[in-house]
Amino acid sequence: MKIAILPGDGIGTEIIAEAVKVLKALDLKFEMETADVGGTAYAASGHPLPEATLNLAKASDAVLFGAVGDYKYDNLERALRPEQAILGLRKELGLFANFRPAICYEQLTHASSLKPELVAGLDILIIRELTGDIYFGQPRGRRTAVDGHFPGSEEAFDTMRYSRPEIERIAHVAFQAAQKRNKKVLSVDKANVLETFQFWRDVVTEVHKDYPDVELEHMYVDNAAMQLVKAPKNIDVLVTGNMFGDILSDEAAMLTGSIGMLPSASLNAKKQGLYEPSHGSAPDIAGKGIANPLATILSAAMMLRYSLDQAEAANRIEAAVKKVLASGLRTSDIYSEGTQKVGTVEMGNAVVAAL
Amino acid sequence: MKIAILPGDGIGTEIIAEAVKVLKALDLKFEMETADVGGTAYAASGHPLPEATLNLAKASDAVLFGAVGDYKYDNLERALRPEQAILGLRKELGLFANFRPAICYEQLTHASSLKPELVAGLDILIIRELTGDIYFGQPRGRRTAVDGHFPGSEEAFDTMRYSRPEIERIAHVAFQAAQKRNKKVLSVDKANVLETFQFWRDVVTEVHKDYPDVELEHMYVDNAAMQLVKAPKNIDVLVTGNMFGDILSDEAAMLTGSIGMLPSASLNAKKQGLYEPSHGSAPDIAGKGIANPLATILSAAMMLRYSLDQAEAANRIEAAVKKVLASGLRTSDIYSEGTQKVGTVEMGNAVVAAL
Ligand SMILES: CC(C)[C@H](C(=O)O)[C@@H](O)C(=O)O
Ligand SMILES: CC(C)[C@H](C(=O)O)[C@@H](O)C(=O)O
Repeated sequence: MKIAILPGDGIGTEIIAEAVKVLKALDLKFEMETADVGGTAYAASGHPLPEATLNLAKASDAVLFGAVGDYKYDNLERALRPEQAILGLRKELGLFANFRPAICYEQLTHASSLKPELVAGLDILIIRELTGDIYFGQPRGRRTAVDGHFPGSEEAFDTMRYSRPEIERIAHVAFQAAQKRNKKVLSVDKANVLETFQFWRDVVTEVHKDYPDVELEHMYVDNAAMQLVKAPKNIDVLVTGNMFGDILSDEAAMLTGSIGMLPSASLNAKKQGLYEPSHGSAPDIAGKGIANPLATILSAAMMLRYSLDQAEAANRIEAAVKKVLASGLRTSDIYSEGTQKVGTVEMGNAVVAAL
Repeated sequence: MKIAILPGDGIGTEIIAEAVKVLKALDLKFEMETADVGGTAYAASGHPLPEATLNLAKASDAVLFGAVGDYKYDNLERALRPEQAILGLRKELGLFANFRPAICYEQLTHASSLKPELVAGLDILIIRELTGDIYFGQPRGRRTAVDGHFPGSEEAFDTMRYSRPEIERIAHVAFQAAQKRNKKVLSVDKANVLETFQFWRDVVTEVHKDYPDVELEHMYVDNAAMQLVKAPKNIDVLVTGNMFGDILSDEAAMLTGSIGMLPSASLNAKKQGLYEPSHGSAPDIAGKGIANPLATILSAAMMLRYSLDQAEAANRIEAAVKKVLASGLRTSDIYSEGTQKVGTVEMGNAVVAAL
């Protein structure tokens, strides 16, 4: 088994180091190899996803990814910006199924913007389709408008699209995930306006026939954005397209109040996966040793479970994280009075000790 | 001056009746004419936006709109469904500028899902572009995929697009609105992924040169969905495209906890406008006399201000609504212990009395 370790930019290096430390402490048999990605890779070699990094990722069973992005690359042309690395990896590895849990840890309920009773015990699994939709649809670009409100003027355009097999496979993933949970799937679309998402609704409804034990509800994306705020605990598994998933998964993550705790997994059909924290590269606190490594450590746990067939080791990590939280250790993003503030390295060490 | 009154479906008739009552009590000079729209129009004449209704709207200075939609029309083909009426009116009247305030009323702060300190005094103005983007972009439809992940399979697609003048005019609207407020514009896009929204960012940045007194910030839509939850009070004017605006304006409305209080305005270049509550037709409570008419009454106030040049009358309505809230009257959606629960008609009467 081989893991590609891609720390990336900002706090990426710091948080990945702690996850690697935890993985090593498990004493399992796998190889780890590190490579540059994002702005760091661009600075070193002129491209955010160098050929060598992509090849390493392809040749690995799993990728453990830190974070990419920094203000200093904001003015690069789009194709060279750090986030192209993540889009490139998703596309090249075919990572179509993104798992984004939004969990509210008991001890961190107070950190949520929402009233505690609305989020206590929250456990939503957002499943976002990750290789289709308007993210990758062609054609796209700039041109002179030939129709619309201002024919003859300059316009930019993109193409939203989903094919039947793309929708089918992500729907299967969602229904199967729901079978292992509370057997409820909320499919989010905009069928009242978009052809793409009327089709989405039709196909999800068809796939549902294979899962009579799972309850399926359809909801428009605007309503879903509201229900997440109003009554998030009504949601079990939420499945949606790439664009809506981008928005709703971040909204849901922020509802928990502790985005520094949330892992994510992106899988392809062969269970090869990319694992990364739900938060970003946080350039403002990079190098200060205060970033929360737990989302990355929990991403490593997801990796063990989904791509490396080591469910038991995954459980051990998750139990260790819970123990550390219960012991009162907190990085500054989740700190509250009466708990003990620690840095990135101390938090990593504490998880290792709790294993 | 002429106002088209379109009650629509569900609670539409009930809430519009109260707004009309308030308008009449002002004793101003304007004509009102009522017409069918939405499911009600479909049931009566086979189309959700009958020619006569559209002509009336076109010939009026403003449209006061209730709400459309009912489960019983869910299985109609898309072109005949109630919400096509609203899309048709936006398109035919060229209502490109949608104003969606998200205001948290002092007395209703507790109704929010968010902790009171995060929303007390909240006053965001969301300006959503309403006639462009993927809502109306052509081509769209179903076809056989010729490329992508599954060439040869059935796919559905839509086109996202914005032309330079479309972005320019909504940007001007946003900057001018900000000049009358706290002089801060947050432009929300997805420039890191979409050509359309890289162009959006470029054009908004250019238009900003005309407004050196206004501060402009750009933010990706996923981050905006998070910041709305985390620190909504940091936002003054938020401007964005049609699709992102649909999602974020509903998220923001729900943050206030009292969507039954929130009006909206949709204007064209001639200041002709459509005014409607931010909430929907609520078929589950239709006919019970318990719907909150205040969002519709406040929409009538916006109408007086923006389309009918009657700012003073608008102020009178808004002051009356505040007075009624202060007196402790509440419809059931905003009821809390220690206040007095009233129905739709009583609430309308109270506003009239407070004028
Ligand atoms: C960096 C960006 C391209 C990416 C996305 O939009 O998918 C990010 O927001 C995410 O959700 O992983
Ligand atoms: C009914 C629907 C077409 C509409 C939209 O998506 O614009 C609604 O959600 C709104 O926001 O006014």
